[in-house]
Amino acid sequence: MSILIVGSTALDSIRTPTAKNPRLLGGSASHAAVAASFFSPVKLIGVVGDDFPKKYIRLYRRHKIDLDGLQILPGKTFHWSGEYEANMNNRRTLLTELGVFETFTPKLPKSHQNTQFVLLANIAPALQHHVLNQMRRPKFVVADTMDLWLNIALLDLLRLLKRIDGFVLNDSEARQLTKEDNLFAALKKIHKLGPKYVIIKKGSHGSILSGPRGIFICPAYPLHTVEDPTGAGDSFVGGMMGYLATAKGSIDNNIRRAMVYGSVVASFCCEGFGLTRTTKIKHVHIDRRVKELEKLTRF
Amino acid sequence: MSILIVGSTALDSIRTPTAKNPRLLGGSASHAAVAASFFSPVKLIGVVGDDFPKKYIRLYRRHKIDLDGLQILPGKTFHWSGEYEANMNNRRTLLTELGVFETFTPKLPKSHQNTQFVLLANIAPALQHHVLNQMRRPKFVVADTMDLWLNIALLDLLRLLKRIDGFVLNDSEARQLTKEDNLFAALKKIHKLGPKYVIIKKGSHGSILSGPRGIFICPAYPLHTVEDPTGAGDSFVGGMMGYLATAKGSIDNNIRRAMVYGSVVASFCCEGFGLTRTTKIKHVHIDRRVKELEKLTRF
Repeated sequence: MSILIVGSTALDSIRTPTAKNPRLLGGSASHAAVAASFFSPVKLIGVVGDDFPKKYIRLYRRHKIDLDGLQILPGKTFHWSGEYEANMNNRRTLLTELGVFETFTPKLPKSHQNTQFVLLANIAPALQHHVLNQMRRPKFVVADTMDLWLNIALLDLLRLLKRIDGFVLNDSEARQLTKEDNLFAALKKIHKLGPKYVIIKKGSHGSILSGPRGIFICPAYPLHTVEDPTGAGDSFVGGMMGYLATAKGSIDNNIRRAMVYGSVVASFCCEGFGLTRTTKIKHVHIDRRVKELEKLTRF
Repeated sequence: MSILIVGSTALDSIRTPTAKNPRLLGGSASHAAVAASFFSPVKLIGVVGDDFPKKYIRLYRRHKIDLDGLQILPGKTFHWSGEYEANMNNRRTLLTELGVFETFTPKLPKSHQNTQFVLLANIAPALQHHVLNQMRRPKFVVADTMDLWLNIALLDLLRLLKRIDGFVLNDSEARQLTKEDNLFAALKKIHKLGPKYVIIKKGSHGSILSGPRGIFICPAYPLHTVEDPTGAGDSFVGGMMGYLATAKGSIDNNIRRAMVYGSVVASFCCEGFGLTRTTKIKHVHIDRRVKELEKLTRF
């Protein structure tokens, strides 16, 4: 089945202590869409300016991403610039130019409104609502978020939590949202806000699912070097949703394995700047790492 | 098979934001010995003063811990006092009174010198050497450590690493020792210092083994409340070594499961102050959580 993904589509200029990479393809929707495309047909909803490099349109197309919902407007593409410290955990934003993203209003082509799997990747909760408002009864809706929206759009986000099936956030965001330091206590509190499935991402420590079948402790693939973690969380949720949209059987039967697939796509994402590594892999490379993770966690 | 454990035997006065608990039984050897006692007969090597409460001697005896190597000397028992912040991660030492521990020289009764499994729990590396010097060809020796020894006894520790089979340390210590931020890169560097098995503890994020059969990602048992994490690391390595000393078959065949058992004993340790919770459980409670962890990690 196909999956609809809305989020940011951006140009990322990323610096690490050892390298500079200007104007890479980035944004939550780009990362999630490429990750999902290994498993399911993807319909992308986003906006770029008329400066958006043609090569990135071709990149989307190579991944068979449906661009009917990608608006190309006069003006500049959203441009983010950031710098990582040596440990690759601390990130500093150097520059944010919203460009055409500032007035983005997602519009769903008619053909998209029936999509059964919906990923509301990280973007303002108001826009996530706006997309949901245009959908007919989707089967499974998952939203991602970031600390910014907890700070400036909490009410919109809380309203959203009542409309979605699954919610994905990272550990510090879970603590901020619930005022609980213990993540398992935080998971309980987040369920009370609405979502049946809650996933807390912990970076290199993996992730935790809390759902109708209880807790799942999902491993991260062991990486010896991290080139650039930008987009890893988006790749995780994109890969997970792409896998779920295609897998046969119930969500409950598939979601653990879906998370492991997402985790593996995220590991590839970290091994190159932007999407440079992810766009070079094939499905067989993903399968191989999933098998490895089976071995690395068996006891 | 029995296991010999050397380390500190202390009285711990522990404060958290919600409770005060003076003069609990503590120290690395006490925690490790009680944890190991669920699986194997334990021979404890340590020292206490003549103020050491009789009830703690009885506690050791209830766990069938051989006390022939426990010296009781005139003077005060090692007393540590510390305070945890609300998140239970940051700990501040309020007071350290070494007492009889200051001049501790471990002496092994003749009957102990043939023990096949040896756990050098956290204690000065010079004393860990001193114990090893008195042993005849043990089968499997594991050492734990702490940041203090990296700071003040690094050369002794580096010498020790060439004499042991397994080395256990936490993530921040691994980074300090290797100057590597990436833990998998750190594991490689630590192998080069000597040990065939290296285990990095990551608290609530579980632990990682690197050994002859590669990496094992060991989960932590999900805890909704942590009363007092003091001794969790000692319980982990004690439980692991106790399990290994009894398990049939090779170390390589058993070490993953041994770590999971250690992880579960550590989870009980965190649920009460000092050893109060650990000393109340039975083997069946441990087995139950190990089974649960199997379910929580399967995909």
